[in-house]
Amino acid sequence: MYDPKPEHKFSFGLWTVGNPGRDPFGDAVRDTRNPSQLVDLLGEVGAWGVNFHDNDLVPIDASPSERDRIVSDFKKALERNGIVVPMATTNLAYDPVFRDGAFTSNDPEVRAFARQKTMRAMDLGAEVGAKIYVFWGGREGTETDAGKDAIDALKWYREALNYLCEYSMDQGYGYRFALEAKPNEPRGDIYLPTTGSMLGFISTLDHPEMVGLNPETAHEHMAGLNFMHAIAQAIDADKLFHIDLNDQKFGRYDQDFRFGSEMIKQAFYLVQILEDTGYSGSRHFDAHAYRSSDYEDVKAFARGCMRTYLILKEKVEQFKNDSEIQDLIAEARADDGSMDPHLGSYSSEKAKALKAYPFDRSALGKRSKPYERLDQLLIELLLGAR
Amino acid sequence: MYDPKPEHKFSFGLWTVGNPGRDPFGDAVRDTRNPSQLVDLLGEVGAWGVNFHDNDLVPIDASPSERDRIVSDFKKALERNGIVVPMATTNLAYDPVFRDGAFTSNDPEVRAFARQKTMRAMDLGAEVGAKIYVFWGGREGTETDAGKDAIDALKWYREALNYLCEYSMDQGYGYRFALEAKPNEPRGDIYLPTTGSMLGFISTLDHPEMVGLNPETAHEHMAGLNFMHAIAQAIDADKLFHIDLNDQKFGRYDQDFRFGSEMIKQAFYLVQILEDTGYSGSRHFDAHAYRSSDYEDVKAFARGCMRTYLILKEKVEQFKNDSEIQDLIAEARADDGSMDPHLGSYSSEKAKALKAYPFDRSALGKRSKPYERLDQLLIELLLGAR
Amino acid sequence: MYDPKPEHKFSFGLWTVGNPGRDPFGDAVRDTRNPSQLVDLLGEVGAWGVNFHDNDLVPIDASPSERDRIVSDFKKALERNGIVVPMATTNLAYDPVFRDGAFTSNDPEVRAFARQKTMRAMDLGAEVGAKIYVFWGGREGTETDAGKDAIDALKWYREALNYLCEYSMDQGYGYRFALEAKPNEPRGDIYLPTTGSMLGFISTLDHPEMVGLNPETAHEHMAGLNFMHAIAQAIDADKLFHIDLNDQKFGRYDQDFRFGSEMIKQAFYLVQILEDTGYSGSRHFDAHAYRSSDYEDVKAFARGCMRTYLILKEKVEQFKNDSEIQDLIAEARADDGSMDPHLGSYSSEKAKALKAYPFDRSALGKRSKPYERLDQLLIELLLGAR
Amino acid sequence: MYDPKPEHKFSFGLWTVGNPGRDPFGDAVRDTRNPSQLVDLLGEVGAWGVNFHDNDLVPIDASPSERDRIVSDFKKALERNGIVVPMATTNLAYDPVFRDGAFTSNDPEVRAFARQKTMRAMDLGAEVGAKIYVFWGGREGTETDAGKDAIDALKWYREALNYLCEYSMDQGYGYRFALEAKPNEPRGDIYLPTTGSMLGFISTLDHPEMVGLNPETAHEHMAGLNFMHAIAQAIDADKLFHIDLNDQKFGRYDQDFRFGSEMIKQAFYLVQILEDTGYSGSRHFDAHAYRSSDYEDVKAFARGCMRTYLILKEKVEQFKNDSEIQDLIAEARADDGSMDPHLGSYSSEKAKALKAYPFDRSALGKRSKPYERLDQLLIELLLGAR
Repeated sequence: MYDPKPEHKFSFGLWTVGNPGRDPFGDAVRDTRNPSQLVDLLGEVGAWGVNFHDNDLVPIDASPSERDRIVSDFKKALERNGIVVPMATTNLAYDPVFRDGAFTSNDPEVRAFARQKTMRAMDLGAEVGAKIYVFWGGREGTETDAGKDAIDALKWYREALNYLCEYSMDQGYGYRFALEAKPNEPRGDIYLPTTGSMLGFISTLDHPEMVGLNPETAHEHMAGLNFMHAIAQAIDADKLFHIDLNDQKFGRYDQDFRFGSEMIKQAFYLVQILEDTGYSGSRHFDAHAYRSSDYEDVKAFARGCMRTYLILKEKVEQFKNDSEIQDLIAEARADDGSMDPHLGSYSSEKAKALKAYPFDRSALGKRSKPYERLDQLLIELLLGAR
Repeated sequence: MYDPKPEHKFSFGLWTVGNPGRDPFGDAVRDTRNPSQLVDLLGEVGAWGVNFHDNDLVPIDASPSERDRIVSDFKKALERNGIVVPMATTNLAYDPVFRDGAFTSNDPEVRAFARQKTMRAMDLGAEVGAKIYVFWGGREGTETDAGKDAIDALKWYREALNYLCEYSMDQGYGYRFALEAKPNEPRGDIYLPTTGSMLGFISTLDHPEMVGLNPETAHEHMAGLNFMHAIAQAIDADKLFHIDLNDQKFGRYDQDFRFGSEMIKQAFYLVQILEDTGYSGSRHFDAHAYRSSDYEDVKAFARGCMRTYLILKEKVEQFKNDSEIQDLIAEARADDGSMDPHLGSYSSEKAKALKAYPFDRSALGKRSKPYERLDQLLIELLLGAR
Repeated sequence: MYDPKPEHKFSFGLWTVGNPGRDPFGDAVRDTRNPSQLVDLLGEVGAWGVNFHDNDLVPIDASPSERDRIVSDFKKALERNGIVVPMATTNLAYDPVFRDGAFTSNDPEVRAFARQKTMRAMDLGAEVGAKIYVFWGGREGTETDAGKDAIDALKWYREALNYLCEYSMDQGYGYRFALEAKPNEPRGDIYLPTTGSMLGFISTLDHPEMVGLNPETAHEHMAGLNFMHAIAQAIDADKLFHIDLNDQKFGRYDQDFRFGSEMIKQAFYLVQILEDTGYSGSRHFDAHAYRSSDYEDVKAFARGCMRTYLILKEKVEQFKNDSEIQDLIAEARADDGSMDPHLGSYSSEKAKALKAYPFDRSALGKRSKPYERLDQLLIELLLGAR
Repeated sequence: MYDPKPEHKFSFGLWTVGNPGRDPFGDAVRDTRNPSQLVDLLGEVGAWGVNFHDNDLVPIDASPSERDRIVSDFKKALERNGIVVPMATTNLAYDPVFRDGAFTSNDPEVRAFARQKTMRAMDLGAEVGAKIYVFWGGREGTETDAGKDAIDALKWYREALNYLCEYSMDQGYGYRFALEAKPNEPRGDIYLPTTGSMLGFISTLDHPEMVGLNPETAHEHMAGLNFMHAIAQAIDADKLFHIDLNDQKFGRYDQDFRFGSEMIKQAFYLVQILEDTGYSGSRHFDAHAYRSSDYEDVKAFARGCMRTYLILKEKVEQFKNDSEIQDLIAEARADDGSMDPHLGSYSSEKAKALKAYPFDRSALGKRSKPYERLDQLLIELLLGAR
């Protein structure tokens, strides 16, 4: 019943199930598996897709022949597991070259190198069929703002994205770009820190139609923001191109926990808006197993991400079909149409009429909403108690 | 030397120096002063402008004749103090009618009432010369998302702003709208929580050219975000129409402390970007005195906001003229032009050349930046130790 | 099945169900009900106990005869509803006199007044049978630390508590004191901000045996801390005298939401530790209904607090009886006793033996724990999916 | 003038100036220097002391002879630079063996190994003269609480500390233990998350007199707490044995920035309380240079920590000697002694008199404090503008 199927479009990054458990205070705890082994693991747990950074697949110092062999092995693994590559991205964070940024580095040679690296990574993604290309600017930021010009940084960032949009079109790759925001870590502050900031930024690009968002639960939670609201804005603007599902507590380091494992109610709202609005893209899990896990537990982690999504999806249906809940919603959203003449678009006449309308402010202020009742029913539904 | 002058464009809200000190756990501690008295107080401390919500000036239940008398008294106070009204706004938060929102209330009658109240408030603002009209949607949000549709809410919000844009044009008021984001409080979560979200939202409006931002330090700090970065994005998008200066610690309730009183370095960066980019709007202080203060201390509070701004402005100049600092910045931002062929806009030829360019990645990764040195000099400059 | 019974010891403050919905940006939205009416409401929803601040029951300016009439009415209401008063406390926050603190005010007259007010409030609590006396120092803090001495403040705080301990003993009231921490709001920073700080403070008092803790979910969540861990420390130190149950998101203003309505998993852990350790005190709900609610919804809010507790309590049982879960826990906590000689208390011989013990560090580092499996089962249990 | 001198007791960890810049998203950027080289670097910048984790000095897999050679080289480096070792500690975080904790690991063999490793590290510290022994339980925590018992964990933690206290006494090492709290990272939640929690915990130990605190700025800032207040509580309890100075923004990952580089006012308060109370221990900087730095910049970082401390120390003096500031403080703290009979310790007679004392509550509520004036003067003093 909660088994993943291809139509659910569940995908994982190579870096997620392949995460060896290194952290700022500790060494790797799991042996490193190669991309083909990881695809087999994903096949075993029932994933539909796999995504990667260029260097998850091909080491940064691989020779052309090594690259070709690795890609060939990877394609075979994809085929034998029936797994697709919906998305690819560039690692612009790990190598020391990016210590002061990539597209926004103060060093023009680094900015140029970041473009080169991305073009090559786009080639690689296209070679295996990726149609979404993600940009996460993890190093695009500062620890001190004394040495950088934040406006120049935005200009450089924009130039790079404009350039790469044209590269994609020129090559006929058909990519749609998905921008991913994060407030901080690994930089003290990262530019364009929230999904909203990215949306504002997109409207300043040369090709806004081919650029959308890749919001991530954990990144919005780091800033203590309501992730579903961010997704609503993305959908409202028709910019939800991809999504990174995981979980974490507010106001913390980047925890990247299993989807639905920390803030259950918030995860429900998220699944609800994705399902109710017919989101048709990947359900990508950008998380990793606890450092205490071995690979058996990594599989449990991956299965858990998908199962929890499907359990919540079922609850979304249940919510829709619960008449007590729906009655309360109907009560909360009652609209007898009498205000229609005063809402909607503007005209001078409408404004005149509205300005003259005699509202009974005191009576209006006494109108309540049954939100405690409704929210309690939701909690009971989530807990399986109705 | 640090005395406020009209060209500094320092303004305060009536609600700031007039704040009586009520809070969620305590009663008012200062007597209520009427608008004319508050304008006199602002005149005494040397402010240039005063801003207000409709009901800061005219009580919500005032009769037309009371309204006219109040406005007349207020204009006299403005005149005798040489104070202008650069901005006005609507109180869509205080009255119980807005307990579930204003433009996004589930109740269509409240949504209509919010438009009516805003039109009347725009009339009032125009009557005293305001040219900026601020929208802070303090009640536009939720405690539970079970009973509201976040996408409908954005649609309703947009419709209201579109309508009010047209009202302004229809009346010839010449307003520019400035949207103010806040992540939460008084609602559990507020829609469009960050300056970035508002920027993304503006691009979906019918008249984006007349709508910009009113970012507030404290609101961005509540989400733990770098406020200067938000201002940089606003300036980059040519949308910094107004600004609310104050201060507070990250991840807290809305503290609205005296400008520059909590996070000094961050305040410096803010003044720096405003001054260096030639921001020409109001420097509006949206803060209030501690609850322990009497009106003498309220004046000290208001004077302190302006003095600290001017002290930091002087430090911005000093920073620009400090050769050791500027040398380090020049080192950090060195560009010999050799990468010019690989940067800027796209062409197929450029892409081909860049993809073939032999970067020495290892050497590039060893290049460091003197940011500790630079940041230490900034700290010493801020501390008056250089 | 989830109906509250006296043995569950569910209590509410008068200030919770009686909260009229005033907030920093808005007016009251519900009419004020008197204490007897609120006790009737609590009787209707099935509460066991009611708690109060002195001025929740008796207005600060009541005459002695008014006081006596109110108390008499209140006792009748208690009797007719079969409701007890397990706890009382003092309002040292609302009156302007406390604008710079109560026991730690810089004004010695305020410090003395705070003691007087507390003694009288202790008399009142004793009169209606309260055995727990709570201290929440909501105004004990600062906005600026320039004008206060934080060490003196602790000294004054301690002196006041020592004094009041002796007053209780002198009067034969039999109170146990329960200290409640909060990090900030309404003060910029509050002294002794976490449950841990309070525990440290207790060990410096003259009568530590009669002073324990009253931890509150929302207050610990404001600082982003794991509330169950705080409760574990309180229980470990035998200091869990009382508890304030509610909910809220991390890093926010004081939200005081319905118990279990925001962070479900965390609420489960909390109920689990209370039930598994046999906590025998009140389950006190220190929360209030949304501002959108009327009194019908307030009742739903109160019922919801209790129902969710009971649903979670049932899940605690289920967790204990789920063999798959218990097997994983047994695996995670396996102990074959072979290390017993090296653990426990110290002796020179044991230390010598342990220093010489040949651990196979590499093998130990490979041992994993099945925490992803276990946590996923917990999530499924919480969701009613097992 | 701001040159470090031995009497300032400035110390650094080997891990601070030796930090190679690895982070969760990126590789090392600086070459690794050996302990002797790092001591030379510290000598060059003028530090007084150096501290270390066992494996900062001796690799975990060093043979006995390698260990002896390393220690010998290190001692020579100490001698030639005139540098002392005031503190030592154990690395119980890095090795995979500690992936589920050290003293609180569910695995009894790990718990035993952690004790063994600590005893050996204590031997090493004693060998080079350390008198303070720090415990930071970075892995003592959970990602999920489903598989651990938080009360058992505290019990195990306590047993380990009791055991190690006795080991120290048994060996005659004369150590004083200093416990360091942190709320999270690298674990999802860390037990005993704040300085206050640690203080509470100490009172439950067998030898509380030999155990105190090592509070760290960044760790308390992660939870958004006022660090000076934590230090005040530590001093009040006579438990400030050591301190870790650094800086970071609230509600973030562990940033460990240069002392005084983020929150200047808070750093001032900290220096003020340390200097004004005559704290005589190390001023230990537990920070590291930005990842963009080379070793020249690392030196600037280290020098900057000390210079900023000394600049702030000078400001503490200036604050004490500023008559306008001191007059305002005197006003804020005025005490004419008239309340003396009602304060201090308890007696029945005093209580009777106090209960009968006729306070003029209304007049008291009107008394204000000049905190805005005072705080503004502090800000101007910090900015060098007075």
